[in-house]
Amino acid sequence: MLVVSGPASRELGEAVAKRIGLDAVRVESKLFPDGECYVRLESDVNGEDVVIVQSTYPPQNTHLVQLLLLADLVKKRGAREVIAVVPYLAYARQDKSFRPYEGVSIETVLGLLKCVGVKSLVTVDVHTPEVFAKAGFPCKDLPAVGVLAEYLSTLGLKQPIAFAPDVKALRMAKKAAEILGGEYGNFRKERDRVTGEIKMFPECRHSVDGKDVVVFDDIISSGSTMATAVKMLKEMGARRVFSACTHPLLTDEVHRRILDSGAVEVVGTDTVSSAVSVVSVSPLIADAVSK
Amino acid sequence: MLVVSGPASRELGEAVAKRIGLDAVRVESKLFPDGECYVRLESDVNGEDVVIVQSTYPPQNTHLVQLLLLADLVKKRGAREVIAVVPYLAYARQDKSFRPYEGVSIETVLGLLKCVGVKSLVTVDVHTPEVFAKAGFPCKDLPAVGVLAEYLSTLGLKQPIAFAPDVKALRMAKKAAEILGGEYGNFRKERDRVTGEIKMFPECRHSVDGKDVVVFDDIISSGSTMATAVKMLKEMGARRVFSACTHPLLTDEVHRRILDSGAVEVVGTDTVSSAVSVVSVSPLIADAVSK
Repeated sequence: MLVVSGPASRELGEAVAKRIGLDAVRVESKLFPDGECYVRLESDVNGEDVVIVQSTYPPQNTHLVQLLLLADLVKKRGAREVIAVVPYLAYARQDKSFRPYEGVSIETVLGLLKCVGVKSLVTVDVHTPEVFAKAGFPCKDLPAVGVLAEYLSTLGLKQPIAFAPDVKALRMAKKAAEILGGEYGNFRKERDRVTGEIKMFPECRHSVDGKDVVVFDDIISSGSTMATAVKMLKEMGARRVFSACTHPLLTDEVHRRILDSGAVEVVGTDTVSSAVSVVSVSPLIADAVSK
Repeated sequence: MLVVSGPASRELGEAVAKRIGLDAVRVESKLFPDGECYVRLESDVNGEDVVIVQSTYPPQNTHLVQLLLLADLVKKRGAREVIAVVPYLAYARQDKSFRPYEGVSIETVLGLLKCVGVKSLVTVDVHTPEVFAKAGFPCKDLPAVGVLAEYLSTLGLKQPIAFAPDVKALRMAKKAAEILGGEYGNFRKERDRVTGEIKMFPECRHSVDGKDVVVFDDIISSGSTMATAVKMLKEMGARRVFSACTHPLLTDEVHRRILDSGAVEVVGTDTVSSAVSVVSVSPLIADAVSK
């Protein structure tokens, strides 16, 4: 087996290879002045099972095209099986057709991966794992809550409470609470019928007063839900509030906004390259692909 | 038959549809704040042969992903045959493997088009039509020299000479000379063995002194070849020098540079959206797809 570290996930790919006890196959990559991508393998893959590690965070289309070029190249260079590890899977949020003549873009993306010879796919906290049912090849989604909670457990939290910013993230908060050895709670979102404004209501059997709270979510994008949750928890008397997510798709401005709302730290994983990507998902991936 | 005008070629698609006597199927398109593309057809395509007009000039990866999403959508919405009209075909210049473990990206791109159901492809002045031999579906490349020369013939040129900036563009200059009713010539490029500098030498049986010269090329990108050709022709005594190309992949700065080198006008086609895309290839495309 060989691990190819794609240009969007160079360090992650190398960390995965190291954990399995392999050297990563490096990829020479550049953008031509006109914007086209170029990829080249730095060594042979002929006859091997090849794991390509390439996330598709923004710029999604560039990272996706790099992934497609790489997978096709690996296959054409004689690889036996191609396993694509795409920690952040772009287009996963376009998973339903709501209006007439609208496409389900994630289905197209999965079809493209199949077309270039991908035999199986590994993702981390994908938006809706249900989309994999139609992929036509095995897909496995890995939860990052374990590595996130383990990182947070090293920070000396006092009476930790794991909080979900909405009902969808509740499972993540429950699991985190187990690892942190504390309680959990969540917010419930409600849209005001008159103004259309979204309001958040805390639901927790335990007081947060004087305790350390971690808000867990799968993704931070615009950051508005996270910022509101942090602010409310501070108002409810939390001692310190941490913000943790799998995919920190956040700009510097959003990062600043969450800190300004009262968070002491924002933490994310290396599924996305960002200023807060301090927790590596490499143990999860190494484990999944070496089984 | 229906014509779908993709987001990169909205006006061109509508011009093609109009020439065939059809209304174009419009595409609702946007970029989400995180950078993902969204496409939606504004009307039905079920049971029809569908021509998708979508060029893939920069940002190439975004336009390519839009094309793939659109073709897949059109196919899944029940279209009979999908004809992709991609006037500027991205990645066409990556048509050979020069170094070990290097991919031939254009082959991957053609494979992706096939995968999403494209049954035939139409391009304009593609870099090397030879790449189509491996596509596995019919491809047709259309020369734009006719529409370019016809436009230039309306400008009242005096004793026109069509010039190729290098030997590769000579065929284009010959054809243009026929249409303009004038002579042709070309430059020959030579690399200095000591300095590595590229020098250009004019080759023409006719003097350009006092005459109007048009430099024809398939693409203007960095613009250095074109600017040098224009400058030398002015120094050789040309009355006016025009710069004409199929794919004006040029920035404002490159446009300025060519004008500064002495050109009275830079002209390109609408295969690429640019400030100089004044000549439409819609007659060529309408003709090719309605046959």
